[in-house]
Amino acid sequence: MFPTWQDVAAELVAVAAGRAPADLVIRKGTWVNVHTRELLENHDLAIKAGRFAYCGPDASHCIGEGTEVIEADGRFMLPGLCDGHMHVESGMLTVSEFARAVIPHGTTSMFIDPHEVANVLGLPGVRLMHDEALAQPVNVFTQMPSCAPSAPGLETTGAELGPAEVEEAMAWPGIIGLGEMMNFPGVIGGSQAMLGEIAATQAAGKTVGGHYASPDLGPAFHAYAAGGPADDHEGTSEADAIARVRQGMRAMMRLGSAWYDVEAQVTAVTEKGLDPRNFILCTDDCHSGTLVNDGHMNRVVRHAIACGLDPVMALQMATINTATHFGLERELGSIAPGRRADVILSSDLRALPIEMVIGRGVVLAEEGRLLAPQVDFRWPDSARATVNMKRDLEASDFDIPAEGERVRARVIGVVENQAPTRALEAELPVADGLVQMDRAGDICQIALVERHRATGGVTNGLVSGFGYDVDCAMASTVAHDSHHMIVVGTSKADMALAANRLREVGGGICVFKDGVEIAMVELPIAGLMSDRPAEDVAAAADQMMAAMRACGCGLNNAYMQHSLLALVVIPELRISDIGLVDVTAFRKTELLVE
Amino acid sequence: MFPTWQDVAAELVAVAAGRAPADLVIRKGTWVNVHTRELLENHDLAIKAGRFAYCGPDASHCIGEGTEVIEADGRFMLPGLCDGHMHVESGMLTVSEFARAVIPHGTTSMFIDPHEVANVLGLPGVRLMHDEALAQPVNVFTQMPSCAPSAPGLETTGAELGPAEVEEAMAWPGIIGLGEMMNFPGVIGGSQAMLGEIAATQAAGKTVGGHYASPDLGPAFHAYAAGGPADDHEGTSEADAIARVRQGMRAMMRLGSAWYDVEAQVTAVTEKGLDPRNFILCTDDCHSGTLVNDGHMNRVVRHAIACGLDPVMALQMATINTATHFGLERELGSIAPGRRADVILSSDLRALPIEMVIGRGVVLAEEGRLLAPQVDFRWPDSARATVNMKRDLEASDFDIPAEGERVRARVIGVVENQAPTRALEAELPVADGLVQMDRAGDICQIALVERHRATGGVTNGLVSGFGYDVDCAMASTVAHDSHHMIVVGTSKADMALAANRLREVGGGICVFKDGVEIAMVELPIAGLMSDRPAEDVAAAADQMMAAMRACGCGLNNAYMQHSLLALVVIPELRISDIGLVDVTAFRKTELLVE
Repeated sequence: MFPTWQDVAAELVAVAAGRAPADLVIRKGTWVNVHTRELLENHDLAIKAGRFAYCGPDASHCIGEGTEVIEADGRFMLPGLCDGHMHVESGMLTVSEFARAVIPHGTTSMFIDPHEVANVLGLPGVRLMHDEALAQPVNVFTQMPSCAPSAPGLETTGAELGPAEVEEAMAWPGIIGLGEMMNFPGVIGGSQAMLGEIAATQAAGKTVGGHYASPDLGPAFHAYAAGGPADDHEGTSEADAIARVRQGMRAMMRLGSAWYDVEAQVTAVTEKGLDPRNFILCTDDCHSGTLVNDGHMNRVVRHAIACGLDPVMALQMATINTATHFGLERELGSIAPGRRADVILSSDLRALPIEMVIGRGVVLAEEGRLLAPQVDFRWPDSARATVNMKRDLEASDFDIPAEGERVRARVIGVVENQAPTRALEAELPVADGLVQMDRAGDICQIALVERHRATGGVTNGLVSGFGYDVDCAMASTVAHDSHHMIVVGTSKADMALAANRLREVGGGICVFKDGVEIAMVELPIAGLMSDRPAEDVAAAADQMMAAMRACGCGLNNAYMQHSLLALVVIPELRISDIGLVDVTAFRKTELLVE
Repeated sequence: MFPTWQDVAAELVAVAAGRAPADLVIRKGTWVNVHTRELLENHDLAIKAGRFAYCGPDASHCIGEGTEVIEADGRFMLPGLCDGHMHVESGMLTVSEFARAVIPHGTTSMFIDPHEVANVLGLPGVRLMHDEALAQPVNVFTQMPSCAPSAPGLETTGAELGPAEVEEAMAWPGIIGLGEMMNFPGVIGGSQAMLGEIAATQAAGKTVGGHYASPDLGPAFHAYAAGGPADDHEGTSEADAIARVRQGMRAMMRLGSAWYDVEAQVTAVTEKGLDPRNFILCTDDCHSGTLVNDGHMNRVVRHAIACGLDPVMALQMATINTATHFGLERELGSIAPGRRADVILSSDLRALPIEMVIGRGVVLAEEGRLLAPQVDFRWPDSARATVNMKRDLEASDFDIPAEGERVRARVIGVVENQAPTRALEAELPVADGLVQMDRAGDICQIALVERHRATGGVTNGLVSGFGYDVDCAMASTVAHDSHHMIVVGTSKADMALAANRLREVGGGICVFKDGVEIAMVELPIAGLMSDRPAEDVAAAADQMMAAMRACGCGLNNAYMQHSLLALVVIPELRISDIGLVDVTAFRKTELLVE
């Protein structure tokens, strides 16, 4: 563990008083003070034992034998950026590789919710993420996942978490609170389990993450707020943001790879003039490609500024506001004595070039080049053998038997640029006692292949909207939220090949066309994460998306659409290991209409 | 203990969702939202189990059998006021009587530092204050006193506190942090004891109170900040306030009975435009008379508004800012779901009439009338027999022997309207081997009478500036900070009478003139506090001050000047049980000059 303030207070005092030399002094920069919202030119920072010892007009008295001096030359010295809520698994990276990808972008603190790993590996998986988080050279805090399964009764996860597990995790050193409480109907309905998880978190003095994904701002919303969640990142409109902050929750505004919720909400501050202290920026989900090509929290801050927010206010929303929210305001999130010495040097507060990144007093990146050493954290074999299928599959495992010549069947309708699906119906021909796909009508097959307990279960269904126009199949062990395996294809033979190939490599995403593998993203850790660098994963993901296009799929975010088809908490029709699920009525339904 | 949010969350959710009736609904008021800094007209509040269950546009669905309804009729509904730092002992009242005095003024949360009691009774005394605090119908949190003695080596207190006591106290349920760390030279010098107390507080996740009473904003100030104090109420200028907030400390601006530090500092916000979130209002010290005649935190908020501060911003500084500072932002300090239902109804946001005070969902005061029942807390006899003198004194105990006909002696010079004294010298006649007072020159005698360990010690000295022009004496067991007994008089016989009378009644303040008692404030608890109501104590204190005037004293704050003469942390010359103290050199000195 990184030493506490109190561990090193005597050293910090001695440096500030001029009795001992600092380890590092940054000289003559413009101190971006997120406490006062000031820009203070010509200031110096002295760092000792990884923490700020002196922040003031002249640190000459802190310089002595062994003090390294960095000349800021008038550049801005701003606190390292914080991501207030995010899932590392969305990058398909380990925590270590995620950190290596974002440090050069200036991210020095992350609040991660390993919800996906929890669904596959349970509490031991959360502990592994937590332990890897603590090994990083930047500050990675773990939110204990609250909802595994997300939809009890509608899916079978690899493991389940409840109040007892939450209480246990709250004692771990790196746990900062409870991950997003997605089961908002449970909270509103007074679920003992959900309120029990919240209670265990509050009793530990930690922060309860929220997730209220509904436009209803009436009594249901108020009941959710009364249950205890302290923040919410599911708002998408100005009214959403205002409603949350009025209830004493913090509005987390996200810009992820596929989330664009800052622009619509930030007007609560820029136009309505609300006190900005309760607004926080976050990413929630970033793909590797976004990290490699566009950035991380620096991208979010830039965007918020482009939306009209005052630059220092935007920085507050990615530094001190976040720290305060998690009870860490005296630990990080600002440049002030005693805090972890996380500093960015930048020559422009709007374009926000990240010229140097210092984490806990160590130069971790310069001009985009990572200087931090590799972290020594090995994922155990137990986390690498998670595609637990009973046997290899054959084309016939995807047969959908039916009588007669035609049937009316339910079809999951993918909608461009939207997470909800539509519950469609279609007339399909039957041949040799089997329902036939309708490639002309863009109706192909989907299967949910059980992979946690080797039950041999395969749920077959139909899906429309991908546009696949050749013999092909795509399989993925990223299959929110229970992360079995989703296989979509126009060819049952390719579906079997794809599923078996993922079984062979231990999970990932692959595309087969005409019996040939044309893309593979290996995700051996929990079937969710690679242990390769972000660049490699981004390249493999690019190839995977190109492969989808080569098979005829023209959807935006095509891979995300694929991986969300088992997300049985979002309407209207989904697939799970228990069967086809009507996510309007929250119950199992039948594939064939009577 | 008041039930936690998690204890009653299921009830709150049920009320907000409309499944169960609220205990109390306040209807159609203007919600002063200190999270957003908005005034929201026509809103309702529903309260259950002492906490807010619903805060929104219409609580009709929360009203059912047994719900009491209060019509706000368009009045402002504002959060109960918080006093961020204060000493109950300054009111010479018990915690219970202090609370009864301030509840009608709208104060529903106090952060008290029982520093004076600690100096007399030690940790058991702090525990008694803490226990009495927890018994109140409003929220009284205790800061563990950090500096008993204030000046180690220069005085002998009734008890001493150190890191071990701090660590013990941090586990008590009502301890919110460490009381003002007054030993700033100790922190700056790296004192193990002082840093140890801070470390114990930080390790418990609690707030370290600061006290940096120096105009030096150079390295010494920065070293103090690096030591860990999280706030400071000793600032007196705009520059002081700005310096503190830049260092990530909160600037507590005080308006006490004799402190006027808001006007000079609040310009940091009103003129310099600093982010207001790190500014907090407090009183520090209020006499009973101020509470009875002028108010408490309502007086401070009104004053801040009169100084040009936006009213809602001023209220934030007395509500949510304070709560956030102490890690209580989800517990109190705002009107929002889950928080303790502390509400004031007022028809004007500037004049701030306190028309109704609700604490934890109970109407505690209306139109200035207290409705709260008496709290059942008895101070034990052990706290009531603290004037532990060896024997009654005689006039000769105050003899100052000298040889020759004249001597040159050191004289404590009281300065009008200032806490520091001057180190004067005077030529005085000697008669019958004893130094004589010089009534014409306004030089009379002062004695520090030991009263903690019955040593029989009497330190004699000389003081100038009170203007006593008759045979008289004033004695007080309020004698900051070690609280022995200070006796000042022109007549040694009256000095003995006054001292012995305080011994008889168990402490307090009395004035004798020509051998007759003309004023008495009995303070039987620790010699510091009455257990009478504020009105009675204020009346007795008024009579005491009138008695001082009747003896010729024309000083402002004459009683305070008297009670501070043993405060051996403020220059230049003071008296203590070890002798006369030079508080510039921080060492004992001799009464007679060589």
